[in-house]
Amino acid sequence: MATVKLLSDAEADAIPAVKAVFDDIRATRKTDFINNFWRGLANDPVTLKRTWESLKAVMTGDTALPPMVQEMIYIAVSTANGCNYCIHSHTAAAKAKGMSDAQHAELLAVIGLAAQTNHLVTAMQLPVDPAFLVES
Amino acid sequence: MATVKLLSDAEADAIPAVKAVFDDIRATRKTDFINNFWRGLANDPVTLKRTWESLKAVMTGDTALPPMVQEMIYIAVSTANGCNYCIHSHTAAAKAKGMSDAQHAELLAVIGLAAQTNHLVTAMQLPVDPAFLVES
Amino acid sequence: MATVKLLSDAEADAIPAVKAVFDDIRATRKTDFINNFWRGLANDPVTLKRTWESLKAVMTGDTALPPMVQEMIYIAVSTANGCNYCIHSHTAAAKAKGMSDAQHAELLAVIGLAAQTNHLVTAMQLPVDPAFLVES
Amino acid sequence: MATVKLLSDAEADAIPAVKAVFDDIRATRKTDFINNFWRGLANDPVTLKRTWESLKAVMTGDTALPPMVQEMIYIAVSTANGCNYCIHSHTAAAKAKGMSDAQHAELLAVIGLAAQTNHLVTAMQLPVDPAFLVES
Amino acid sequence: MATVKLLSDAEADAIPAVKAVFDDIRATRKTDFINNFWRGLANDPVTLKRTWESLKAVMTGDTALPPMVQEMIYIAVSTANGCNYCIHSHTAAAKAKGMSDAQHAELLAVIGLAAQTNHLVTAMQLPVDPAFLVES
Amino acid sequence: MATVKLLSDAEADAIPAVKAVFDDIRATRKTDFINNFWRGLANDPVTLKRTWESLKAVMTGDTALPPMVQEMIYIAVSTANGCNYCIHSHTAAAKAKGMSDAQHAELLAVIGLAAQTNHLVTAMQLPVDPAFLVES
Repeated sequence: MATVKLLSDAEADAIPAVKAVFDDIRATRKTDFINNFWRGLANDPVTLKRTWESLKAVMTGDTALPPMVQEMIYIAVSTANGCNYCIHSHTAAAKAKGMSDAQHAELLAVIGLAAQTNHLVTAMQLPVDPAFLVES
Repeated sequence: MATVKLLSDAEADAIPAVKAVFDDIRATRKTDFINNFWRGLANDPVTLKRTWESLKAVMTGDTALPPMVQEMIYIAVSTANGCNYCIHSHTAAAKAKGMSDAQHAELLAVIGLAAQTNHLVTAMQLPVDPAFLVES
Repeated sequence: MATVKLLSDAEADAIPAVKAVFDDIRATRKTDFINNFWRGLANDPVTLKRTWESLKAVMTGDTALPPMVQEMIYIAVSTANGCNYCIHSHTAAAKAKGMSDAQHAELLAVIGLAAQTNHLVTAMQLPVDPAFLVES
Repeated sequence: MATVKLLSDAEADAIPAVKAVFDDIRATRKTDFINNFWRGLANDPVTLKRTWESLKAVMTGDTALPPMVQEMIYIAVSTANGCNYCIHSHTAAAKAKGMSDAQHAELLAVIGLAAQTNHLVTAMQLPVDPAFLVES
Repeated sequence: MATVKLLSDAEADAIPAVKAVFDDIRATRKTDFINNFWRGLANDPVTLKRTWESLKAVMTGDTALPPMVQEMIYIAVSTANGCNYCIHSHTAAAKAKGMSDAQHAELLAVIGLAAQTNHLVTAMQLPVDPAFLVES
Repeated sequence: MATVKLLSDAEADAIPAVKAVFDDIRATRKTDFINNFWRGLANDPVTLKRTWESLKAVMTGDTALPPMVQEMIYIAVSTANGCNYCIHSHTAAAKAKGMSDAQHAELLAVIGLAAQTNHLVTAMQLPVDPAFLVES
C-alpha cells in the first residue's frame, strides 16, 4: 500500500488540472494506460504537471540518444538507487522500445561491473589521474 | 592520498603477475597510459587480473551495445553511487569513444530525471502495476 | 519474513531489560502499540536500550525543530536510503504530528528536486563555490 | 575540475537563452551571484531553464513549508546521496534563511539517527506493521 | 516477479554452458540447491560463468578472512546498498558458517553505528585528519 | 572546509561537557589525538556525548567480534555509503588493530563482489528463495 492515494480514472477526471495531464500522457504515449506513478503524483496537480512535462521534454520527441538507450540509462540509475518500481517500469519500457535479450544481459553486466569498480575505487580512495582532468 | 599504495611502473614490472596485466591493458587499449585504478589494484595481483579480465570481457571486443553507450551506462551508475574518480574516468572514456556535447547533456538530463522519479516513487511506496510484471 | 525473530509481548515481558524499554516506549508514546522495529531490536537488549534512548533524546521532549519537521527530515533520509519500512512508519508519524496533504506533497517535491540536482551536480563534478565555504 | 565547462558571465551573456535564466535567477534571488551549478547546467540551455523553473516553482513564492525547512530537507537528501557540493550550498542557504546553530545541530542529529535506524531496519528486513498501512 | 526468466533445472540442463556452472556450484557447495541468483544470471551464460568464478575465487578455498567474516562483510555492503535478496541470502550463509546470535547482533550494531557516523561526517563535510593519510 | 566549526583544544576545554568527552576519548584510546569527527560534533555537546558513548559501547570492551573485524565491517559500510573521511579513518584503525595487507586486499575484493551482485540482483528484481526465509 502506498503512502499516498492512487487516483482512479473517475477521481482524476474530476480535477481538470489532473485530467489535462492524463489526457496528454495518453495522447503522447498512444495508450489508455496510466501507471501508478502518475496516479500517485496526481494528489499534487502542480508536481504532476511539472514532472510529466520534464519527462516529456527529455524522453520524447527529438532526442540525442535513441529512446532505448535512454531507458537503459534510466534502468542503470534506478538500479543503483534501489527503486524497484522504476526498474520494473523502465525495463518494460526498454523492451517495448526494442531492447533485445542480449542487450538487456549486457546492460546488467555493465551495471554490475560499474558497481564493483565504483566500490573498489571508493575503498581505495584513489586520486583522479591528471589525464582525466582535461579542460572542457 | 589513497588507502593503498599506487604502484609505479618499476614496481609493477618487478611483479610478473602485475606486469602481465599491465602489458595486456596497454596492448588492448593501444596506449602506454595505466591509470590509478590499476595501480591501486596491483597490490593484489589476483584481484587485478580478475577485474581486468572482467572489464575486458564486458567492455571490449564484440559487444551488444556500442562502446559509447556502455560508457554512458557506466557514468550513470557511477553518478548514483557517488564515485568521483569513476565519473571522471568514464566521462573521459565516453568522450574518447564519440560522445558529443549534446549526448553528454542528454545523459545528464536523463540521470537527473531518473533520480527525481526514483525518489518520488520510493517516497510514495508505489506498488508495481501488474502490466509491468509480464512473464519473461 | 525478517532475518531476526520479532519478539511477542510475552517473550518481551520475560526479559526484564526488554520489558523496561517496552514499558518506557509505551509510557513515552502514550500507546500500547510497539512496532516491529523494537520487536526486532529486542533480540539485543543493549542495542534496544541504546537505540531507544537515542531516539527519545533526539525526537521527544524540548526540541529545536517542531516534531513534524523532524519526521519530515526522517522521511527524506529514509527515502534517499531506500528504507521502505521507515518511509511507512515515519510518514504515519508525520501525519499523526500534523503534516497536511499539502505539506506532504511539498515534502515529496523537495525530495525529488534535491535528488535531481544532487545527481546533476555529481555527474558534473562541480567545485564548491568559495562563497559557500564561509568560516563557521 | 568539472566534467563540463563552467560558463563565465561573458559566455553566458552571449547565449540569449542562458542570459534570460541567469537574469531571472539574479532577479529572484536579489543578488548578482550565480553559483557553479547554473554555470555548469548552462551548457544545455533547455535543461538549465527547466531545472531553474522547477527549483523556482518548488522553493520560492508561496510554499507550504517555511523556506528554512525546505533547505533542511534538501540538506538531508543531499547528505544521504553524498553530494558534497549540495551540502555546502544548501547549508549556506539554510543559514541565510535563519537556521540557528541549535537547529543545525538537531538536523544533524536527526539525519544521523535516521541513517542508523534505516540500516538496522534494512539489515533486519522487517515487515511493515499493518498499523502503518492506513488507507490514504 | 523478476525482470528476467528464472531458469528451471530442465532449462539449465539444456544449455551446456549453464549446466557446467550449475554442476560446479553444486559440487563446490555440496548441495543440490541452486538459488534464484544463478537461475536469473543463467540467461547470460558468459556473465553466469564469470560471476560464479569470481565468487568462487574470492569466497571459497584458502581465504585471508574466515568465511563467516566474509559473509558479514557481504551483509554490511548489501545493507548499505539496500539489496533485500542479498541480505536474506548472506544472512542465511553467515548463520550456516557459524555466525552466532550475539555476533549477528553486534554486526547489526556496527552497521547501524557506521551509518550514523557516515551521515554525520558527510553532513559536516569534515576534512580528513593528516594523521589518517599515512604513506602506504 | 567543514560546514561546522572544528573545536580546538582550547575551545573544547572551555566547555565542561565537551572536555569530559574528550578526556574520556583520550583515556579510552590511550592517545592525546582527537580527530576531526569529535571536534565537529563538539558543537553539540549532547550529540557528542551520545555518539561517543554509543561508539564506546559497541566498539570497545568485551565484543563478540574481534576489533579488527569490527573495523572491516565499518569500512564496508562506509564504502557503500561513500564516506571518504570514514574510509580513511577506519582503514587507519583497522591497520592499527592488525589488518594485514592480504586481509585488506580480501576485504576490498569482498566489497567489490558484493556491490556487483547487489546491483545484478536488484536489476533482476529476484524473489527471495523460500530456503532463505527460515524461521529465526
